[in-house]
Amino acid sequence: MPENRVPITMKDIAREFGVSVATVSRALKGSPRISEKRRNEIVAYAKAHDFSPNIMAESLRNNKTMKIIGVIIPQFTHYYFSSILSGIEDEALKYGYRLLVAQSDERYEREVETCNSFYENKVCGIIVSQSKNTSRYDHFISLMNKGLPLVFYDRICTGVDASRVVVDDYMGAYSAVEYMIGTGCRNIAFYGSSMTLEISKNRYNGWHDALLKHGINPNDCIRKICDNREDAERITPEVLNADNRPDAFFAINDDTAIGIMYTAKRMGLRVPEDISVCGFTNGQRAVACDPMLTTVEQNGYKVGREAADILIAKVEGRMPVDKVEKRVIRTRLIVRGTTK
Amino acid sequence: MPENRVPITMKDIAREFGVSVATVSRALKGSPRISEKRRNEIVAYAKAHDFSPNIMAESLRNNKTMKIIGVIIPQFTHYYFSSILSGIEDEALKYGYRLLVAQSDERYEREVETCNSFYENKVCGIIVSQSKNTSRYDHFISLMNKGLPLVFYDRICTGVDASRVVVDDYMGAYSAVEYMIGTGCRNIAFYGSSMTLEISKNRYNGWHDALLKHGINPNDCIRKICDNREDAERITPEVLNADNRPDAFFAINDDTAIGIMYTAKRMGLRVPEDISVCGFTNGQRAVACDPMLTTVEQNGYKVGREAADILIAKVEGRMPVDKVEKRVIRTRLIVRGTTK
Repeated sequence: MPENRVPITMKDIAREFGVSVATVSRALKGSPRISEKRRNEIVAYAKAHDFSPNIMAESLRNNKTMKIIGVIIPQFTHYYFSSILSGIEDEALKYGYRLLVAQSDERYEREVETCNSFYENKVCGIIVSQSKNTSRYDHFISLMNKGLPLVFYDRICTGVDASRVVVDDYMGAYSAVEYMIGTGCRNIAFYGSSMTLEISKNRYNGWHDALLKHGINPNDCIRKICDNREDAERITPEVLNADNRPDAFFAINDDTAIGIMYTAKRMGLRVPEDISVCGFTNGQRAVACDPMLTTVEQNGYKVGREAADILIAKVEGRMPVDKVEKRVIRTRLIVRGTTK
Repeated sequence: MPENRVPITMKDIAREFGVSVATVSRALKGSPRISEKRRNEIVAYAKAHDFSPNIMAESLRNNKTMKIIGVIIPQFTHYYFSSILSGIEDEALKYGYRLLVAQSDERYEREVETCNSFYENKVCGIIVSQSKNTSRYDHFISLMNKGLPLVFYDRICTGVDASRVVVDDYMGAYSAVEYMIGTGCRNIAFYGSSMTLEISKNRYNGWHDALLKHGINPNDCIRKICDNREDAERITPEVLNADNRPDAFFAINDDTAIGIMYTAKRMGLRVPEDISVCGFTNGQRAVACDPMLTTVEQNGYKVGREAADILIAKVEGRMPVDKVEKRVIRTRLIVRGTTK
């Protein structure tokens, strides 16, 4: 091929056939999801235009010398995310991959920039948990259209049908609430994030269904949008002074649970004799507080390993790039001093 | 140059002159640390052997397309380290650099492997805090000899004369102990790590000198090798039952301080009325415990920014690669509920 001839790209082929780049990618890899006729047409066209496997490999960014996975984390200092990162790295190292790591710092713009930069840096795939204020998903869809494998963890994009690893938020919440009912609690308040987040919805449903199952009307219990300690310390005094005072709280994370627990203590209530409290995370704070917190263990390390396992299987061709692989990691209730 | 001719490397030149690769690098960059005569000889030899600036640039790994900094962290889930990573990233992004990140998991072998892998991945420099059991430094020295900029943070290598960013451990400890003396404490125990770690030595000296300054003999106070909560909860009951019971504790980190504080509470002692406790870190645990911990704030974010600032200045030629730049970040005492 003369040096000044620009090689044909998958995008060119896609334009020629009026299909997506992902379809071209699938056709060139012989995916059965594309009809045989169409596959043969695309492959023939690619050959006729000197679209070589090497260039294809590069288009797919599966360059063997770049065994680098891009990882986007909402916040480095968040214990759960850093335990996930630890799991991703251990799994990646097994296969000789290294990690390009960035935090979105919960900002949509930074997340978009990172996606672009990772692509330019020729990562072989991206593992990501979206920032809290991401509500547009073009940056993810664009990478997937270019044939780059993407795996979501923890906060999944409802707007994108992509591979994902999450914990069993529903069962985690369900068993925690059922446990507290088993200790005699009947009026269990729920503190959670906005229902736009999947994890919030699932934990709410777990709380809701456990109450129903045991003959308690969830509508009789207090529900609050509250997912941090500061807010919990601000709104809880009123909740505890109400006529219909809860005898237990289920909070969407440890930080919030700790805020509730200390507020109760400050008001002269005994934990867990008067008030039971259960969190969700099992981070370092859960054992630093007094009494130690009953909470749902999320097993971030395992989430990270599974996410990397899916991504590497796709990069190495052991799993089709376009397969939507969903894995759910089981949670575990850790009973400590804030419940009876 | 014919294609099959192997280009001369800095190593070849170093061998020819019987000097180190670092010396060759300096000479080629016109560093005044090499005599003018020797510089001219080396440059002339390099020119005569077609050692081109491009190849030199590659030898130095300062490839413009690889604006990637390697970062080695002992443990991802350690709050202080993740706040440092956050600072490194923010500074790096200002200049368009990305981070290849790895944890040594406190293992020497993994640290060595990471150094090699980072070099192969053409990072432009490395920012590192050594693992707890690293006592040989060849892997660092070898990278520096290849002209790769290295910056140490937190745990510095006493065996390597390299650029570093540390916090003022001595003054941090000194002011914490002086503060407790000011509240009436006279018998202040010290819990620290092994004296092989610089940070341990410096915090010990701060404790020691603050006592001396105020007329207290440090030898009359208890000193223990203890740097985690589990050990603190195991050894503290005996310390608190001794005739010469301390009225205060200065611990090398928050985790240890929390172990001491809860042991005292369990034994029926009041914190801070009977026993004052001060930690060092100011991580998430410090505000999760009850009472909240008085501690020395390390400002990891600032440590990270300064480390990246030095590294990038070296990569971009604003600071000589071989300059040993040492920066000390000021600590700050945060007084909370565990001291009077």
